[in-house]
Amino acid sequence: MKEFELIEQYFQQQKLSWCNSHINLSIGDDCAVLDIPSQQQLCISMDTLIEDVHFPKDAKPFDIATRALCVTLSDLAAMGATPIGFTLGITLPEANPSWLNNFSQGLADMAQRYQCPLMGGDTTKGPILVITIQVHGVVEKGCALTRSGACVGDKVYVSGNMGDGGGALPIVLADPALKKAESVCPLTQHFYKPLPQIEFAQSLIGVASACLDVSDGLVQDLNHICKKSGVGIELNASKVPLSAALVALYGREQALQYALSGGDDYQLAYTAAHCENGICVGQVVAGNEVSILDGELLAAGFQHF
Amino acid sequence: MKEFELIEQYFQQQKLSWCNSHINLSIGDDCAVLDIPSQQQLCISMDTLIEDVHFPKDAKPFDIATRALCVTLSDLAAMGATPIGFTLGITLPEANPSWLNNFSQGLADMAQRYQCPLMGGDTTKGPILVITIQVHGVVEKGCALTRSGACVGDKVYVSGNMGDGGGALPIVLADPALKKAESVCPLTQHFYKPLPQIEFAQSLIGVASACLDVSDGLVQDLNHICKKSGVGIELNASKVPLSAALVALYGREQALQYALSGGDDYQLAYTAAHCENGICVGQVVAGNEVSILDGELLAAGFQHF
Repeated sequence: MKEFELIEQYFQQQKLSWCNSHINLSIGDDCAVLDIPSQQQLCISMDTLIEDVHFPKDAKPFDIATRALCVTLSDLAAMGATPIGFTLGITLPEANPSWLNNFSQGLADMAQRYQCPLMGGDTTKGPILVITIQVHGVVEKGCALTRSGACVGDKVYVSGNMGDGGGALPIVLADPALKKAESVCPLTQHFYKPLPQIEFAQSLIGVASACLDVSDGLVQDLNHICKKSGVGIELNASKVPLSAALVALYGREQALQYALSGGDDYQLAYTAAHCENGICVGQVVAGNEVSILDGELLAAGFQHF
Repeated sequence: MKEFELIEQYFQQQKLSWCNSHINLSIGDDCAVLDIPSQQQLCISMDTLIEDVHFPKDAKPFDIATRALCVTLSDLAAMGATPIGFTLGITLPEANPSWLNNFSQGLADMAQRYQCPLMGGDTTKGPILVITIQVHGVVEKGCALTRSGACVGDKVYVSGNMGDGGGALPIVLADPALKKAESVCPLTQHFYKPLPQIEFAQSLIGVASACLDVSDGLVQDLNHICKKSGVGIELNASKVPLSAALVALYGREQALQYALSGGDDYQLAYTAAHCENGICVGQVVAGNEVSILDGELLAAGFQHF
């Protein structure tokens, strides 16, 4: 199958690639052409996912697609942006019709949910599966949530449970396609479909002083806010929310380890003088890094990284 | 070396990643943030280049970088757009300081030449070298050169010599790092640095009725204009310009074969009622595909693809 045929058959379908008020020209020319209203700014972010590095090669193609688009859209959530469209660079070892059909359905599922159509990209043949997605979103001028605005005295919040991504990994690695019934649980669902907190983030515009999405582990990511904002953060580890599923599977101590350093959560962490939404887990202080307050955790052998 | 350190050391340097009037926020947050003036539209295009598919793995890293950015920028030229910045997704088997230093210098060389800074991206570790670049450019509203406007009666033009990209390939495959003096010639220089026709394309705005860049071979690419514009094209093969270096190396017949179907030229092909710039190589007629007029070529065994 030629590249053009493959694109037309699997990617240029109405439920995956449609035009909206921001897209003047989509798939099929040398470039896509976008209209950005003068009161808005464009936010862009790119993520690359490689087989057996960022997802198991034997995962279902539908699940690979939802994970790839979710984790990239999460960067738009981190800025408080509304998705307008994405581009896809995909390198395939072979053009397997069934695989491509399921993969494009996974993309379409998320594209529909977040109203973020496919606008263009590149399809290539290569020895391994590599997926690069760039997402494009808009935010009112000057309203983007960045990492650099945290102030001493602010509180630190997270948007939801931490640790499910890290806790899912051993299960997913043991049974990538979730063939065993016991592998299908809230944790593995979260791993393959870590829904980006787009709407939640928009409620933080004008409220949060700094924001990011937690992809590498809460402590490591909060350290980015410390560095960019020139502050320290005291983290009350005992307040970090954990899902019942995670605690039931691993016990509270291991669950907290996943929550603080596991990664793959794609919840938001943010600072604000005061915020009604979210769970308060700490405070911004003078300093330059995250310190963990709960002593008994450290005594129990907690490892930061 | 951690990802953040690698990005800071090699990619976040002033001569490669600077801000301009379109870039509000660059590398270092969850997204880059762009300002697009209300009278302009944003053009975007993504290309993926894989080792030993799109460039030889053993090519100099500087040359890999210039080629990767040039071929992607060529899509902006095809629309008549002015570059404002690019994003880079790079998958590396290892973090070799010397390789990364030379690669980032190659990127900086082209970024400076086309005033197109690096704004963000993703750096990952994987078994093979994969480079995905997305370029971003602006064009006055409604002025983008597309593939769909060719009219019966228009003439067909190219912006420069055809075939050098195809003619370079055997030399580059035999000596990827150009270690032998005889490998360094105009053709191999063109292969690694196929300068995108950005300025030339801007002279075509308001003049050309359809335009694209020639990456897959003149005949195949002109067929895209035929399909998108609903026209046919008669190509006067004898008028297709060939470089002296190409003809000297291969003889006129083989040179023309490269020119018509070799690919990797990154010159522009366009249609216009009349155009002062460029070389006229044919005319737009009723129909739906390219036909080649010079009978003796076909008799001599010319293969379309």
